[in-house]
Amino acid sequence: CDILILAVTDTAVLEIASSVGIPGHTLTVHTAGSVALSALGRKSNAGVLYPLQTFTKGFPPDLRKVPFFIEATDSRSLTMLREIGDSIGAGAWDCDSLQRRHLHVAAVFANNFANFMMTTGENIASAAGFDPALLHPLMEETMRKALRNGPASAQTGPAVRHDHGTIKSHIELLSFSPEYQKLYRLVTRMIAGHYKRNSR
Amino acid sequence: CDILILAVTDTAVLEIASSVGIPGHTLTVHTAGSVALSALGRKSNAGVLYPLQTFTKGFPPDLRKVPFFIEATDSRSLTMLREIGDSIGAGAWDCDSLQRRHLHVAAVFANNFANFMMTTGENIASAAGFDPALLHPLMEETMRKALRNGPASAQTGPAVRHDHGTIKSHIELLSFSPEYQKLYRLVTRMIAGHYKRNSR
Repeated sequence: CDILILAVTDTAVLEIASSVGIPGHTLTVHTAGSVALSALGRKSNAGVLYPLQTFTKGFPPDLRKVPFFIEATDSRSLTMLREIGDSIGAGAWDCDSLQRRHLHVAAVFANNFANFMMTTGENIASAAGFDPALLHPLMEETMRKALRNGPASAQTGPAVRHDHGTIKSHIELLSFSPEYQKLYRLVTRMIAGHYKRNSR
Repeated sequence: CDILILAVTDTAVLEIASSVGIPGHTLTVHTAGSVALSALGRKSNAGVLYPLQTFTKGFPPDLRKVPFFIEATDSRSLTMLREIGDSIGAGAWDCDSLQRRHLHVAAVFANNFANFMMTTGENIASAAGFDPALLHPLMEETMRKALRNGPASAQTGPAVRHDHGTIKSHIELLSFSPEYQKLYRLVTRMIAGHYKRNSR
């Protein structure tokens, strides 16, 4: 075939690329954020097509909004990947293996860690006796603001206001979980540092 | 007047309530998450009307979606606050001062901390040479999934998969910022602990 896309988990890329007999003329591509192009073990007709998106069973995302980050061993392969990114996604961006790993870490913060902060918020609301879904309008508004002007300018809360009284009271309140306290202290310090010039 | 709503910053609630001569029959209400009802210094006609939402200049939220959490010194005041929550918001929920402080901490995680994770992701993408807005479709999808079944079941990423190779590679990559490394380690450990039984 013309192109073989290995949309598999990171460690499987190496296994499959080295064990399956793939013809030399078949453009062989992986889709992983943290795996180098060289992992495919090919000097030509190899590439990477990394979609900056989260995929979960039962949640088909809108592919037309997804930016693809591409890399290839040769210009003909790169052109093919660019056509794929342009036709099924929001476009294709050139990206070497190191840049792609940085993008993958960025995605971990923006998606996995942001999501876990919402989970933690829901757990605290539940522990106080409330339906965690009562937080959903707040979460929706958080995202609406972040997408409008970027999250950096949407930041609110006691840390950005340098409201030490509220911060102290929150840390006391979290005494039921030393781990939550540690996370609260670290993120609060980071936000305060990030916004140290402008209080709002 | 019938009702006076002190929609001011936490520390100003105490100052205003004690310095302004408010008539005894005027229901006096504050809107702060972390301030006790007792801060109003009144034994009757006092209450709290806490909207679980983030408010920023230039971003008027849809008030009809906002849940209000109410508390009052007397049942007549509580009835008035319930009517307000029902008529302008998504409803009114009874909530004592301690529960409300817990809700406020929950909101700090779900809103402020989630937002800061997105800011951090954008910073890392920028540092790798990309327009941070390329992360916005990912952020939008993160929220869509979190709102559909709750963030706990929407979690993805190397931490929940216990993918130690990727985690190690990410920590190395973040060596330009010991603070980002510390945050990455802590949140990864918390997610892994939260999902220790089921890998996905």
